[in-house]
Amino acid sequence: MQRSRPNDKRVLVIGLGRFGSSLALELVAHGWEVLGMDSNPRLVQAYAESLTHTVVADATDDEALRQVGAHEFTRAVVGIGTHLEESILAASLLVDMGVPHIWAKATSRRHGRILQQIGAHHVVLPEHDMGERVAHLVSGRMLDYVEIEEDFALGKTKAPREMIGRKLGETKVRTKHGITVVCIKRHGEQFTYATADTVPQKGDIIVVAGKTDAVERFAEIN
Amino acid sequence: MQRSRPNDKRVLVIGLGRFGSSLALELVAHGWEVLGMDSNPRLVQAYAESLTHTVVADATDDEALRQVGAHEFTRAVVGIGTHLEESILAASLLVDMGVPHIWAKATSRRHGRILQQIGAHHVVLPEHDMGERVAHLVSGRMLDYVEIEEDFALGKTKAPREMIGRKLGETKVRTKHGITVVCIKRHGEQFTYATADTVPQKGDIIVVAGKTDAVERFAEIN
Amino acid sequence: MQRSRPNDKRVLVIGLGRFGSSLALELVAHGWEVLGMDSNPRLVQAYAESLTHTVVADATDDEALRQVGAHEFTRAVVGIGTHLEESILAASLLVDMGVPHIWAKATSRRHGRILQQIGAHHVVLPEHDMGERVAHLVSGRMLDYVEIEEDFALGKTKAPREMIGRKLGETKVRTKHGITVVCIKRHGEQFTYATADTVPQKGDIIVVAGKTDAVERFAEIN
Amino acid sequence: MQRSRPNDKRVLVIGLGRFGSSLALELVAHGWEVLGMDSNPRLVQAYAESLTHTVVADATDDEALRQVGAHEFTRAVVGIGTHLEESILAASLLVDMGVPHIWAKATSRRHGRILQQIGAHHVVLPEHDMGERVAHLVSGRMLDYVEIEEDFALGKTKAPREMIGRKLGETKVRTKHGITVVCIKRHGEQFTYATADTVPQKGDIIVVAGKTDAVERFAEIN
Amino acid sequence: MQRSRPNDKRVLVIGLGRFGSSLALELVAHGWEVLGMDSNPRLVQAYAESLTHTVVADATDDEALRQVGAHEFTRAVVGIGTHLEESILAASLLVDMGVPHIWAKATSRRHGRILQQIGAHHVVLPEHDMGERVAHLVSGRMLDYVEIEEDFALGKTKAPREMIGRKLGETKVRTKHGITVVCIKRHGEQFTYATADTVPQKGDIIVVAGKTDAVERFAEIN
Amino acid sequence: MQRSRPNDKRVLVIGLGRFGSSLALELVAHGWEVLGMDSNPRLVQAYAESLTHTVVADATDDEALRQVGAHEFTRAVVGIGTHLEESILAASLLVDMGVPHIWAKATSRRHGRILQQIGAHHVVLPEHDMGERVAHLVSGRMLDYVEIEEDFALGKTKAPREMIGRKLGETKVRTKHGITVVCIKRHGEQFTYATADTVPQKGDIIVVAGKTDAVERFAEIN
Amino acid sequence: MQRSRPNDKRVLVIGLGRFGSSLALELVAHGWEVLGMDSNPRLVQAYAESLTHTVVADATDDEALRQVGAHEFTRAVVGIGTHLEESILAASLLVDMGVPHIWAKATSRRHGRILQQIGAHHVVLPEHDMGERVAHLVSGRMLDYVEIEEDFALGKTKAPREMIGRKLGETKVRTKHGITVVCIKRHGEQFTYATADTVPQKGDIIVVAGKTDAVERFAEIN
Amino acid sequence: MQRSRPNDKRVLVIGLGRFGSSLALELVAHGWEVLGMDSNPRLVQAYAESLTHTVVADATDDEALRQVGAHEFTRAVVGIGTHLEESILAASLLVDMGVPHIWAKATSRRHGRILQQIGAHHVVLPEHDMGERVAHLVSGRMLDYVEIEEDFALGKTKAPREMIGRKLGETKVRTKHGITVVCIKRHGEQFTYATADTVPQKGDIIVVAGKTDAVERFAEIN
Repeated sequence: MQRSRPNDKRVLVIGLGRFGSSLALELVAHGWEVLGMDSNPRLVQAYAESLTHTVVADATDDEALRQVGAHEFTRAVVGIGTHLEESILAASLLVDMGVPHIWAKATSRRHGRILQQIGAHHVVLPEHDMGERVAHLVSGRMLDYVEIEEDFALGKTKAPREMIGRKLGETKVRTKHGITVVCIKRHGEQFTYATADTVPQKGDIIVVAGKTDAVERFAEIN
Repeated sequence: MQRSRPNDKRVLVIGLGRFGSSLALELVAHGWEVLGMDSNPRLVQAYAESLTHTVVADATDDEALRQVGAHEFTRAVVGIGTHLEESILAASLLVDMGVPHIWAKATSRRHGRILQQIGAHHVVLPEHDMGERVAHLVSGRMLDYVEIEEDFALGKTKAPREMIGRKLGETKVRTKHGITVVCIKRHGEQFTYATADTVPQKGDIIVVAGKTDAVERFAEIN
Repeated sequence: MQRSRPNDKRVLVIGLGRFGSSLALELVAHGWEVLGMDSNPRLVQAYAESLTHTVVADATDDEALRQVGAHEFTRAVVGIGTHLEESILAASLLVDMGVPHIWAKATSRRHGRILQQIGAHHVVLPEHDMGERVAHLVSGRMLDYVEIEEDFALGKTKAPREMIGRKLGETKVRTKHGITVVCIKRHGEQFTYATADTVPQKGDIIVVAGKTDAVERFAEIN
Repeated sequence: MQRSRPNDKRVLVIGLGRFGSSLALELVAHGWEVLGMDSNPRLVQAYAESLTHTVVADATDDEALRQVGAHEFTRAVVGIGTHLEESILAASLLVDMGVPHIWAKATSRRHGRILQQIGAHHVVLPEHDMGERVAHLVSGRMLDYVEIEEDFALGKTKAPREMIGRKLGETKVRTKHGITVVCIKRHGEQFTYATADTVPQKGDIIVVAGKTDAVERFAEIN
Repeated sequence: MQRSRPNDKRVLVIGLGRFGSSLALELVAHGWEVLGMDSNPRLVQAYAESLTHTVVADATDDEALRQVGAHEFTRAVVGIGTHLEESILAASLLVDMGVPHIWAKATSRRHGRILQQIGAHHVVLPEHDMGERVAHLVSGRMLDYVEIEEDFALGKTKAPREMIGRKLGETKVRTKHGITVVCIKRHGEQFTYATADTVPQKGDIIVVAGKTDAVERFAEIN
Repeated sequence: MQRSRPNDKRVLVIGLGRFGSSLALELVAHGWEVLGMDSNPRLVQAYAESLTHTVVADATDDEALRQVGAHEFTRAVVGIGTHLEESILAASLLVDMGVPHIWAKATSRRHGRILQQIGAHHVVLPEHDMGERVAHLVSGRMLDYVEIEEDFALGKTKAPREMIGRKLGETKVRTKHGITVVCIKRHGEQFTYATADTVPQKGDIIVVAGKTDAVERFAEIN
Repeated sequence: MQRSRPNDKRVLVIGLGRFGSSLALELVAHGWEVLGMDSNPRLVQAYAESLTHTVVADATDDEALRQVGAHEFTRAVVGIGTHLEESILAASLLVDMGVPHIWAKATSRRHGRILQQIGAHHVVLPEHDMGERVAHLVSGRMLDYVEIEEDFALGKTKAPREMIGRKLGETKVRTKHGITVVCIKRHGEQFTYATADTVPQKGDIIVVAGKTDAVERFAEIN
Repeated sequence: MQRSRPNDKRVLVIGLGRFGSSLALELVAHGWEVLGMDSNPRLVQAYAESLTHTVVADATDDEALRQVGAHEFTRAVVGIGTHLEESILAASLLVDMGVPHIWAKATSRRHGRILQQIGAHHVVLPEHDMGERVAHLVSGRMLDYVEIEEDFALGKTKAPREMIGRKLGETKVRTKHGITVVCIKRHGEQFTYATADTVPQKGDIIVVAGKTDAVERFAEIN
């Protein structure tokens, strides 16, 4: 079996709901070979043309999983979300088949914990994670926000007045606000990296990096 | 009415499921005053102590919304996700009340479109957005990934071999790979911003910025 | 595309329940070409012979609507009533397709309001409107009643005793009761217009026009 | 018992859904005393203040009907629509109680026929009737339409070009189109009756009376 | 149409549940031609061989009833029992078709009353009637009991001791107990009529006729 | 325990549906003491005043049955009909309690057989029995019919023409038709027994006894 | 019919759920011919290859049972567990067919009692029996436990310290603990019978027999 | 915390269905202290008196489990069987609380496997295990059967003819049949251990030990 061949660009995506289908389409768009699987024929049909392969099968049935060759994949995603039970059954089977990289979506922290106890390697909580992320946007100052590590975040925001017309290297935002400007987007242009010589104009959008609190506070000064 | 007072740090969160509750807790953690509302008494009770205010009420009932003062909020979040109908009814009422900043969660693109047609100002699709984001992690090379603009992304990844022991300013990654290293995390330390003088070591984690394809490709060379 | 051609006598009727089917049959009876659409095969079959075209399709599915050419119609009626959600989804899709004249049935005032927010051009509330209309008949004096404008109504009633045997021009009902007799129906004959020379007989039925209160009061004097 | 006293202005309305509540509110607005009855406590509570009397009771229970004095009413409306069975049971009981004027809402022709067989005096089909009426508006020419007798209708429409600036008495519309102009509404004014001397202006709205076909055709010439 | 031909031995039985099927089988056993009809294919199949004709059809559908020729039958039985609504719809259609002899099963007195109001000619209440009949057997004295008229009944019972060995003509049971012995069954033989000369033996079973109370009391003296 | 005392006029009736309640009311009307029991509080309340005692209890619960003293009754009726399971559970418990006379209603022959296997003493099939009985009335000749033994029946019918004006003793109906006239009802009078000297008049109703076929045929000659 | 032929190695297993299928597979593994029957086609298909014969049939239908020859089996197992009703119906039919050895699974004591009243020969309560058995293992001392008679049990346990290195014949466990060592399993070997000369080693597993209390207590001394 | 104290005789039993309640009652009968827990108040009430402690609580709720002190037990049994999801959630919580001995009931092999993956220490499959055990009794020869190890079983059976009247030591059953007689029960007496001098009589019941096949075959020779 060649499960571990280095260039294996195949992914098994179980569950073609919102999460699974978005993930699968994104992978296909980036050149991956995706086998989409769902017990609902309507969902499978909906993605029959846009995914590499699709199959109507019950992912809680050992035999069904083997028939589609689930055990030969290096990467599998359990995107089943509605039914905790089915999500756990499918993940349990993949673990026993020895699939080396299993991603699973959870709908609650306990669901996520059970997936880990069973042996899933990565657990995602979309509703929960997006809830936290959007919280930072509701304030109306920040345009986007993402924590890439505990206590370190990136924030997208309008360049504040105090920066306008001055070289970044001279504004001392690092000292003053504890953040660094990493990217900048001129009005009507695309994002690019920022340097010490970059001079923000009114209406420019910047991405700043720093400790979560610092990023939060910086967005407020706008 | 003082709805527009500049320092209004109050948010109405309708629907205390996974998304709404995570968002509400995050806001409270950052010093916001949150009124959490749900028609399910069990959910309301679960967050009675952690949110500023909670109320059991039917957000599809005009009268009920007015009694909790929904029309006096500057910011409201419709986190109802299970029932399209309730989500739309609640958003429709908030729009007619003139709430100036309405965030609404959608479960499908059409749901999101209807929320926009009705007049909601911001629409979020957690399952969909997380699906796309996780797709970039399934490859196994990238540790985190986020698009902050169409065709511009940030990716978290291990520093590739070709960078180890060399100053960033000398590696010409911008020219060669079309990306910029914006932050770096030394083993056992926290993230910090990267400069031209930064010298990545083996095991360092970096955040790079660039066009989505460039970020994708850069993660592959690791 | 010839959507706006002046003589387009085609209507798309979505939802073949009581309202939609009655509307569709009436249109066909007056020479219109009607495409009747419902997701319920039994309803579609029931009208397969009496409507110009019928199709079993899910009006909440963008693709399905396009396949039947919904975007090429100048006039569409959303008669879906049972499920608020489906009604809104179908109306939302028609709006985005740019159908210039969309009629939609609502089952409640809020439902009607959402349809308007989405962009439907005309909203009908059958249960509500008929309830109000029938209220005027329950009194037992009026035989039919319809408001054609706020505060202007037409009422069908028996000719009151004080009119019998006298020319309408001499009875001064306009002055005395604030109404005008516009049509009259002799016993055993059909309705015709009334003139100043018309002499009502006992048992004649008349249609009077006037302010709603005046019409109401006039029916009482019978 | 004084059931037949001439000035009895009391009505029993059974079923406070869309139809029944609209009807009941309209009656109250015109000075009638209405007893609203429904087995759903939420509906009864919703109208507790706007109707004269309200009661939570099961209209399919003989004893319950007697306790609210149903048998003493001269007029009763059965507005129950969802459940054919309940509608029929309530009507059957009212008939056996000898209520002299029973109005009942039906949801289908056969339902209406059964109500008649049982002995209800007036049967209304809101969805069906409104469907037919709206069919005449979908054409886009007519602004309102109502049949007041088989083959005799009233239609609201814009005054056609050929009438503008000419006395109605001289336009011979009766001879030419088979219709009579009975009311007219000047732009910015209210409706009033039309006479032979009325001269329609551009933008005036008129109500015409005539055979259904004639009214239909007349709207087309606009 | 030959609906009224004197020797028409055809019956339409709608609803092949316990009641309808027992009735239909009994009729077939006595030489009648029975068309059994039910919307449930399994029930229809179960009696396909034992009834003259069977058909799967919806008896609440006018068209379906006409296709099986329901309007040509002289006698029809509506044995539908589970759903009041279907029972009433079917009976209503048969009445409008002019079927001259309609029997209908009711599950409650009000159901029975509605069937009569609609125009069914005979109404049967099996559960109710059998309940009353069995009440007379629970006492343990009577072996069978049937009221053939209000206040006149037949009762099957063991011959009481005071009758044993005496000619019926001499026992004066008519005078003493108000009943008449109409039939008698010797042990091991069949029933036959009783005469004044009949001499009951110990263990004989008799059928007595008389007022309900008298029959009741007579059974007690055993 | 005095369960077998000869004058015990108490009956336990389990299940107060159509059958059970009719039976219970009939018993009370004849002076019996009835304990009515049902798990449905609404049914129990409905008969609270008309039965001697009523109790809301679950007859499938051993403890509940004992608490109401079920084991002390000489006679019990299991009138539960909707749920086979509950009927069987209740009967099983009564059998194990040693109740000497258990009557049970069945809804199918197999249900009846199981009740017998379990040990119920008498089984009644109302729908089935009434179906067979009514079959004899559908013919239109017989007014009532009851089999009191296999192949021996009583039939109520109009006196046939050949009997009018002649003494029963002279008509030889026994010889000719194999039946005996046992009761007669003069127009406007009550039923009484018939004798050889009885002379039927036109319009009289008679009850005849005889073999089932003979009774059937006799009704036909009318 | 050869139902009683001595070497009949055929078993009918009705209900292929957990219990029935495990039983059926075990029988097949020991050379029996098994006919597996279930009304669920998916279950039947799942065992189509592993059982001798399988059939989709409704075991509550007399005709269906006869068609598969149920009446010709000497042994039948009713493994239906979910629905009490179906279990009882199937058992009742088998009893009436005269199957001489009927095993039936019950889910409660009353269910078991009814199966006995009906005439099933052996009744099994898996959940109940396993619950009692496992209770003896929860203590953590005993490795397995089974009562083979009331008050006589076998227990599997580690050989206690006091036995190690001594001949069983010399340990006087019979006298001291009231139990006998009947089997022993050396580490890494299989079980074999124990004799007076057997010398348990540390880590050996033994099976002891004795009164239930004695076995319980013996496990505690370990 | 004293969770590990050696004489802890307390068990937490979650789920008081057939399995859990039987297990709990057996433990109490042997002197253990049992806390019975179920989310169904009726079940909890049913065992309130027979178990040491009972509590109505949701075992899938972390907080609820802690409030009853679940984390302080040394032994817990998850007897939840109906809902896979609840069983897994409860087991997951107990594992995370560090309960050292967790027994869990599974309804399928995969369910059992998931419980093991999560970290439950012992898994029981009652339906499955009893199915296999009963298979050995259906043959009619064996009276009881239990596998205490793979390929080693104990069987209860009648002493075969060839053993009657001979000392066990002389029958060479070990050599001939590969089994050992370990216990014997004289007619009317209780079981006791068997020795080489034991002489079985006709009608004696014996327990034999040996390889599963040997035990099976030995039962056949009877």
